[in-house]
Amino acid sequence: MVTSNDNGNDFDERFAALVSEMPGLEYEREGEIVAERSHDYWARSAIERRLGISAPVASALVRPVDAAQVAAVLGWASRTGTPVVPFGLGSGVCGGVLAGEGQVVLDLGHMNRIVALDEESLTVTVEPGMRGSDFEEELRKRGYTMGHWPQSIEVSTVGGWCATRAAGQFSTWYGNIEDMLLGCEVALADGRLIRIPPVPRAATGPDLRALFLGSEGTLGVFTELTYRIHPAPEKQVCRAYAMPTIDAGFEALRLIMRAGWRPAVTRLYDDIETERNFNIPDTEGRSILFLLSEGAAERIEPEAAAMDTIVRAQGGEDRGTEPVETWLDHRNKVPSWDDLLSGDVVADTIEVAISWDRIGDLYRQVTAAGRAVEGMAAHSGHLSHSYTQGANIYFTFVGLREKLEGAVEFYDAAWDATLAATHALGGTVAHHHGIGRVRKPWLPKELGEAVDVLRALKRTLDPAGVLNPGVLVDPS
Amino acid sequence: MVTSNDNGNDFDERFAALVSEMPGLEYEREGEIVAERSHDYWARSAIERRLGISAPVASALVRPVDAAQVAAVLGWASRTGTPVVPFGLGSGVCGGVLAGEGQVVLDLGHMNRIVALDEESLTVTVEPGMRGSDFEEELRKRGYTMGHWPQSIEVSTVGGWCATRAAGQFSTWYGNIEDMLLGCEVALADGRLIRIPPVPRAATGPDLRALFLGSEGTLGVFTELTYRIHPAPEKQVCRAYAMPTIDAGFEALRLIMRAGWRPAVTRLYDDIETERNFNIPDTEGRSILFLLSEGAAERIEPEAAAMDTIVRAQGGEDRGTEPVETWLDHRNKVPSWDDLLSGDVVADTIEVAISWDRIGDLYRQVTAAGRAVEGMAAHSGHLSHSYTQGANIYFTFVGLREKLEGAVEFYDAAWDATLAATHALGGTVAHHHGIGRVRKPWLPKELGEAVDVLRALKRTLDPAGVLNPGVLVDPS
Repeated sequence: MVTSNDNGNDFDERFAALVSEMPGLEYEREGEIVAERSHDYWARSAIERRLGISAPVASALVRPVDAAQVAAVLGWASRTGTPVVPFGLGSGVCGGVLAGEGQVVLDLGHMNRIVALDEESLTVTVEPGMRGSDFEEELRKRGYTMGHWPQSIEVSTVGGWCATRAAGQFSTWYGNIEDMLLGCEVALADGRLIRIPPVPRAATGPDLRALFLGSEGTLGVFTELTYRIHPAPEKQVCRAYAMPTIDAGFEALRLIMRAGWRPAVTRLYDDIETERNFNIPDTEGRSILFLLSEGAAERIEPEAAAMDTIVRAQGGEDRGTEPVETWLDHRNKVPSWDDLLSGDVVADTIEVAISWDRIGDLYRQVTAAGRAVEGMAAHSGHLSHSYTQGANIYFTFVGLREKLEGAVEFYDAAWDATLAATHALGGTVAHHHGIGRVRKPWLPKELGEAVDVLRALKRTLDPAGVLNPGVLVDPS
Repeated sequence: MVTSNDNGNDFDERFAALVSEMPGLEYEREGEIVAERSHDYWARSAIERRLGISAPVASALVRPVDAAQVAAVLGWASRTGTPVVPFGLGSGVCGGVLAGEGQVVLDLGHMNRIVALDEESLTVTVEPGMRGSDFEEELRKRGYTMGHWPQSIEVSTVGGWCATRAAGQFSTWYGNIEDMLLGCEVALADGRLIRIPPVPRAATGPDLRALFLGSEGTLGVFTELTYRIHPAPEKQVCRAYAMPTIDAGFEALRLIMRAGWRPAVTRLYDDIETERNFNIPDTEGRSILFLLSEGAAERIEPEAAAMDTIVRAQGGEDRGTEPVETWLDHRNKVPSWDDLLSGDVVADTIEVAISWDRIGDLYRQVTAAGRAVEGMAAHSGHLSHSYTQGANIYFTFVGLREKLEGAVEFYDAAWDATLAATHALGGTVAHHHGIGRVRKPWLPKELGEAVDVLRALKRTLDPAGVLNPGVLVDPS
């Protein structure tokens, strides 16, 4: 196995060989950019940097301009045993990027073009490093949408979405990233490029897209993606409802999904988050439910009417459209860890998922476990993705640690409490942020012996162990 | 590598050891059942048997009663280098089952129970050997449906559906089998059982279900499946339209999908199949289009109305509901190869898929290529699965070979002509029947170097090469 503790001089020699092999390769060896792109948006990294505990910085950053360069860098990495850490825009929140000495950051930022748009078959082909909001804006200019709206859309890339198995806020109609990726090109660790053809559907053996979706840079690097797109929606309708209890909100969403309705957005905030995030009269102690449908008027108007009936039968009271519009205006705001940490606040969000029969228990047991963590100021949750079988809950914890004393221990304890309670109930420990480093100990607990299959995949596709080592799963 | 040419006596010794290790294991060494279950429903096998060219028969058939027995048999197979060929009900049409001397048929027919039904979260857990129609009937008794309706539902199993990446006739609303499988238990070649938990959605690394879906028994054996289900539909509406041209039918379906409508059934028959299969006044030379929606009345009535407008704008003329009802009554009838062959008729169906921008070309180029094959009596097609990006076409070829002379060569030439024309246009050579043996030479053409990843998976998950050898892909 390759580790990042290689001798620095040795690295210099190897890197010099790469640069001489690839004269056109853009790279940096030091400076602010290398430091900034050696990590993602993991709150724990931010705490450690602030405390001066640890701030690893990669030994180099390379910025390929095309798939051939990506493949050549990976081939060199495998031959020389040099770890490579792919970087999109660094919005990951699980420690999926943390590159240190002897490692190379593979910055995909120069691969940011739309390659092709097929207006008849509704597909778009794009390079992996394009910023999500730029991409969606380009589509909108032509009258289309991808329908993928992660909160991070302004600070994440179209390739990072696949690497982490992302889900967007409009997922209940448009699907998650695995429903959107039609075909792709991937650079393998051995320096080869493979293409998985963008066909509507195939039965040509196991779906190879699934190997790389969610592999977090550990099995290959996306160099091109073909996504499904849709005409920009003709109409959008939305409504907020005050629910007597959070359980009434869960039940309303369960019944909406069961009846076959597919609103783009389903969100349900507990009483704490309702009060914290919205200023809505007469909601004290209540949960707020948001429903938003978009598309052809003839499709979404009957949907909105039918959902209204279901929600009212669960005790929902109409609170108009303004709360949803407020959310729409602010939904892409990503909190700044440094702002919070400078106020001694240690916070994070943790998204998990479970079936409907246990979702009320999940909400109660996780928040109870979280509130039992010493120093916890608030532990709350909201639902943001609904399925016929269940939903996710996005938990938010907030602690106050004077001068950040014990901040790391508090952070770890809050995560542990949340994931332990989720796992005990049979939920999944990760709905859409991925595993990275923060959830790595929980993956074997959730998958049992199936994690050995993942380990075997890692050994098979990255025998030198150079693709983003330390993330997701260890080879053995 | 293990081949099936092992010495017979040696097999007897190994099999005796298995039986003595597992005293409760039900097995057969000879007889009609072993012969019948040594092959699937591949037309080419039927031709060869009829011509007396080849009729391989396995050396034994075992019939496990639970997952532990399946796992133990696979473990024995790997240790002793004995090929194992999983068998559901043998409805595959690609030669995915063809077990010969020295090989063991793993008949899953005794694992045929529903294990659990969760009416709140809408999931059902079932053993792999349950017959599809029995399964759907049990669900209906309780008020539910899976929504998976392959033509073979009466002669296929719930596990076989996953092994082959099946698609049902109602797929445009309910999805294909990969959209339905929530979790599973799989026996690996090394004798271990792994479980992939049935959660609504997860971002816990690559989706391991995808490794086994479509693996056709070559990477593992499903021992339990948890599927999504739905309340039985409240209402069903359908309509048939005569289209001026097949292209007008393609365009109507493209626009229906583009607008976000999701009727359960979309079918479009060319003029030949319209005339052959249906007796509809005033359709000579025209294509017939079927649309069927099911679910809540408030959802499907606006859908039917909007689709009607789209179809009429493409020149569609209402032909009422009767043609669709006729199809519904006969849709599970599977043709008997032996009946056809006894009349000197060599026929088969080949399903492929392509994006909308090339579907008209696909129809014309494939039928032209098929009709150029010597001895071709008819080559026709119908569309049966629609997506936002494209659709499948199910081609049917019919040849007349007196006394079946040259029947195998004709059969191979008809397949080659169809797949070559499909591949040349960038379509996929397999929409939902899988690869088996008949499409195996085409897989590397479609996947290019990506097929090496499949080969690597095979070597990793089945190092002894004992899981259904000869199917899908060779290890090297």
